[in-house]
Amino acid sequence: MTERHIQTPIMHRVVVHNGIVFVGGTVADDMSVGLEGQTDQILAKIDGYLKEAGTDKTRLLSATIFLTDLNRKPEMDKAWKRWLSPEHFPTRATVGVADLGEDTLIEIVITAAASA
Amino acid sequence: MTERHIQTPIMHRVVVHNGIVFVGGTVADDMSVGLEGQTDQILAKIDGYLKEAGTDKTRLLSATIFLTDLNRKPEMDKAWKRWLSPEHFPTRATVGVADLGEDTLIEIVITAAASA
Amino acid sequence: MTERHIQTPIMHRVVVHNGIVFVGGTVADDMSVGLEGQTDQILAKIDGYLKEAGTDKTRLLSATIFLTDLNRKPEMDKAWKRWLSPEHFPTRATVGVADLGEDTLIEIVITAAASA
Repeated sequence: MTERHIQTPIMHRVVVHNGIVFVGGTVADDMSVGLEGQTDQILAKIDGYLKEAGTDKTRLLSATIFLTDLNRKPEMDKAWKRWLSPEHFPTRATVGVADLGEDTLIEIVITAAASA
Repeated sequence: MTERHIQTPIMHRVVVHNGIVFVGGTVADDMSVGLEGQTDQILAKIDGYLKEAGTDKTRLLSATIFLTDLNRKPEMDKAWKRWLSPEHFPTRATVGVADLGEDTLIEIVITAAASA
Repeated sequence: MTERHIQTPIMHRVVVHNGIVFVGGTVADDMSVGLEGQTDQILAKIDGYLKEAGTDKTRLLSATIFLTDLNRKPEMDKAWKRWLSPEHFPTRATVGVADLGEDTLIEIVITAAASA
């Protein structure tokens, strides 16, 4: 059984299958706030997406983080560490990419375990 | 049990494990046709890869789409929406990257649910 | 049940859930050795991470390989083919990205099947 949640014009924000929750690439809504602020917004949105699937940030499996300026990773990490307790850290890859859309500094893709 | 299908010199095109079908990064064969045309070709190839694993595009879980020019995303989306019914949309992340190979405008990576 | 292994300041190197082993983005330790040498180092580190999860490179499911110079892919492929027997190849996507960190030429993300 596959569950899909929150349909947009091009994707579902959340798809659940075989105990794994896939969350689509998430960007901030207000791009004026800098990298740390964009990260805060994204993580809050991800909280909402995980809740939709009946799970939460203590069950993350993997994260892929795309940044347009990898040198600014420390700003992102501040928001990341504020959001997560170390014992719940997922695996992570952080990659500097060419373009994420106008004024978009960061996009995050995560997977999580569905609730038990 | 892990099933692997379609071996190339550097990968298997399709690997199936625990109800999840992984499909390798897929690019077009004819790069002369523009972004929308390359996307059409890729999606047709993915149809074939999914069939090899006994599943189809109605069971997609996640998609990661790499573009060399993110400004041209609308051309890709036209092909995407022609291919998929909204109720079957997977999660998706679309990222502008530096290089996908000569004349390659797009590469798509997907996962899908195996057949029930 | 989710297992997490090898905590760093920002991630777990390995997370296991529902028979799937997620390994975080892995880069070389010594960046002075060129692309083929960096790849050798990464693959050796991945061997260690997989062992930590009780599995090995014969059970790989998917690989995502980020390169800062896609033209040098053949150097990476030499190390890749030395490491893996073709029958165990996972799915793979290889993408040219803007930045992976100073002198970092390659980063690899993989998933694997947990041991039976």
